[in-house]
Amino acid sequence: MHVSGGDLQRLRQLNSLSSIRALRDARRPLTLTELAAHTGLSRGSIVDVVTDLQERGWIAEVEPSPGGMGRPARRYRFRADAGHVLGIDIGVHKVLATITDLNGRAVASGRTSVSPGTPREQRLDAMNRAMDAALIAAGLTSDQMWGVAAGSVGVVDREGVITRVEALPDWAGTDLVGHLAARLPCPITIENDSKLAALAEQRLGVAAGVRDLVYLHAGRRPGAALILNGRPYHGFSGATGEVGLMEITGWRTMTDHLESCPAAAGAPAEDAAALVFGAARTGDPAARAAVEAYAQDLALGTAAMVLTLDPEVVVLGGGFSRSADVLLAPLREALAPHCLRVPEIRPSTLGEECVVLGAACLALDHIDHMFFSPEGALSPPTAPQRPTPA
Amino acid sequence: MHVSGGDLQRLRQLNSLSSIRALRDARRPLTLTELAAHTGLSRGSIVDVVTDLQERGWIAEVEPSPGGMGRPARRYRFRADAGHVLGIDIGVHKVLATITDLNGRAVASGRTSVSPGTPREQRLDAMNRAMDAALIAAGLTSDQMWGVAAGSVGVVDREGVITRVEALPDWAGTDLVGHLAARLPCPITIENDSKLAALAEQRLGVAAGVRDLVYLHAGRRPGAALILNGRPYHGFSGATGEVGLMEITGWRTMTDHLESCPAAAGAPAEDAAALVFGAARTGDPAARAAVEAYAQDLALGTAAMVLTLDPEVVVLGGGFSRSADVLLAPLREALAPHCLRVPEIRPSTLGEECVVLGAACLALDHIDHMFFSPEGALSPPTAPQRPTPA
Repeated sequence: MHVSGGDLQRLRQLNSLSSIRALRDARRPLTLTELAAHTGLSRGSIVDVVTDLQERGWIAEVEPSPGGMGRPARRYRFRADAGHVLGIDIGVHKVLATITDLNGRAVASGRTSVSPGTPREQRLDAMNRAMDAALIAAGLTSDQMWGVAAGSVGVVDREGVITRVEALPDWAGTDLVGHLAARLPCPITIENDSKLAALAEQRLGVAAGVRDLVYLHAGRRPGAALILNGRPYHGFSGATGEVGLMEITGWRTMTDHLESCPAAAGAPAEDAAALVFGAARTGDPAARAAVEAYAQDLALGTAAMVLTLDPEVVVLGGGFSRSADVLLAPLREALAPHCLRVPEIRPSTLGEECVVLGAACLALDHIDHMFFSPEGALSPPTAPQRPTPA
Repeated sequence: MHVSGGDLQRLRQLNSLSSIRALRDARRPLTLTELAAHTGLSRGSIVDVVTDLQERGWIAEVEPSPGGMGRPARRYRFRADAGHVLGIDIGVHKVLATITDLNGRAVASGRTSVSPGTPREQRLDAMNRAMDAALIAAGLTSDQMWGVAAGSVGVVDREGVITRVEALPDWAGTDLVGHLAARLPCPITIENDSKLAALAEQRLGVAAGVRDLVYLHAGRRPGAALILNGRPYHGFSGATGEVGLMEITGWRTMTDHLESCPAAAGAPAEDAAALVFGAARTGDPAARAAVEAYAQDLALGTAAMVLTLDPEVVVLGGGFSRSADVLLAPLREALAPHCLRVPEIRPSTLGEECVVLGAACLALDHIDHMFFSPEGALSPPTAPQRPTPA
């Protein structure tokens, strides 16, 4: 058999990648013997690979635990701090930037407040400041980011262009990729914020490990997002989860049930829902009826998605999910008559962080794809940036 | 660098697989130089790999075309006849079995008629006869099949169990995998028939190469199936595309518009639709109104799926798709008020063959996954059966 230099380089690369992946996915230190078993590599190859990966900063040897008999076997761990990614959430009221390590663990954040009326340029400035703050807090520079992903309100197409935004008057058409590319020399991804919230719940939140889920954004601007086969489902033009646009679902008007409830009389519209949920919690009959009417409408659009997709789980997210204790039971009850099988409904737990963490997860997915996909592994991946010695 | 025997074997395997894949996906013969370019392998490795694959029957040298100057470069093609798969369609009125080559090209078929009242054992007998007929017609034996997939009416779960069938009284719970395993020593997959029809349209039919599509089964038992990211979408329990179960869609009663039309007066229910479509084609006002009322209902459930999934294409399949010339325009018109973007609607072209061809495609996908996925490539794939010399 001919073995060329190129073949050997490719083999070495595959061995390195499978070793990094094995150590990362194990989420605990492994001995050389365990690593050989996980990767199917020979002992000799593993020793070579481990030496090389240690030098390049991808893995570290773990101090043996004190005590125990004889000389303990050497153990190695994936260095999640070998690289970092930046997640951004550009919302209607705030911009949040969070830096995570390669395991998706947040290490630093920056935040600025904006309002629905903030013009595009000022919103972009607010984003810059939030990013700068996160970098300063992390003690890192922009060229140390391996990837960045940003979540935005509105419909985002495959090229990352924001094509349609109801909530922000001048935001559609913003060249977010171009703006970020001028500041960050790394791969950039833009996605709709609800899709990222759904991804965060599937990776780090209440739906960890669930393959297929429908994420409901229950709030003043209702919406939905889909995780199918473990990944955010994007559709042809990004306009997925929009079943609420059908008038028969009642989604366009369903918050009226809450805002017109006597329990919210006199309060500003943005506080109405919380007041009504609060009153329902204490047993107020009118408030309970309002919540039930809201749940009926929410259930109709949800049932259409559930019957279409047969998801394992529905995640109840958005601002109203903080009142899941009073909303969940009526929602479940309203779904039952429509569905073949009512999926488990789980309230979101990541709260305000969900979009920004989802953005970091998406940036990490992108890195993963570059390194570990069949295409990535077969063509030489971009050499990872060597981290500064810890 | 250590290179063990195991490393070399793995390298050889990866090189073989990437060469087979390159030749198969090229769909035309390649020279050694082209093959090296497609795979990134060195010239020396390619010569080794090609010799080995030729001996093992995976590839064949193509006769040089006569004429031309000098000695022509040798060219090689993937041998699609190196293996075969069996697709089966177990319908309400017929059982169809088709054997295809590794490119999904049909080489032989067998067919038997059944009726809605045919009991389970007789339906399985009919399936056996259809399979035997296809094998005889192909001149192959059951142990030469590399994979088999069967499509069935009803909801099929991930383990291939048929969990719910409205159309056939005693069919739910049939152990189709067990039945086939007793006759065919190869991987077996069972899937819902509409999902397979959708897959066939996406691989071989009107939606070739489309990533995301909604397949409508427009017929006396309406249904739908989804292809998302290029693969049949299965959901948690297989019950996807069931939005028609929601009463507000009108799907449960929409064929009444056709069956109660004067144009179908006195005809048996199973002939009514064709008569009404025929009358509409000649301009009969009552028939046109009936088709429009049917299209309105069909559009409501379709819109719910389109708004949820934002597919590139909707494929109009099922028996009524033969009347796409009169049905398509009213359907498109009825969809428009509901949708952000009306996807292109394309009538199915594979007709009666769509389920059985989709089954063959699924069996081929399974083989592909065994050989070409990262997991498959990293563990030694089952050695392909050596084909008999052609």
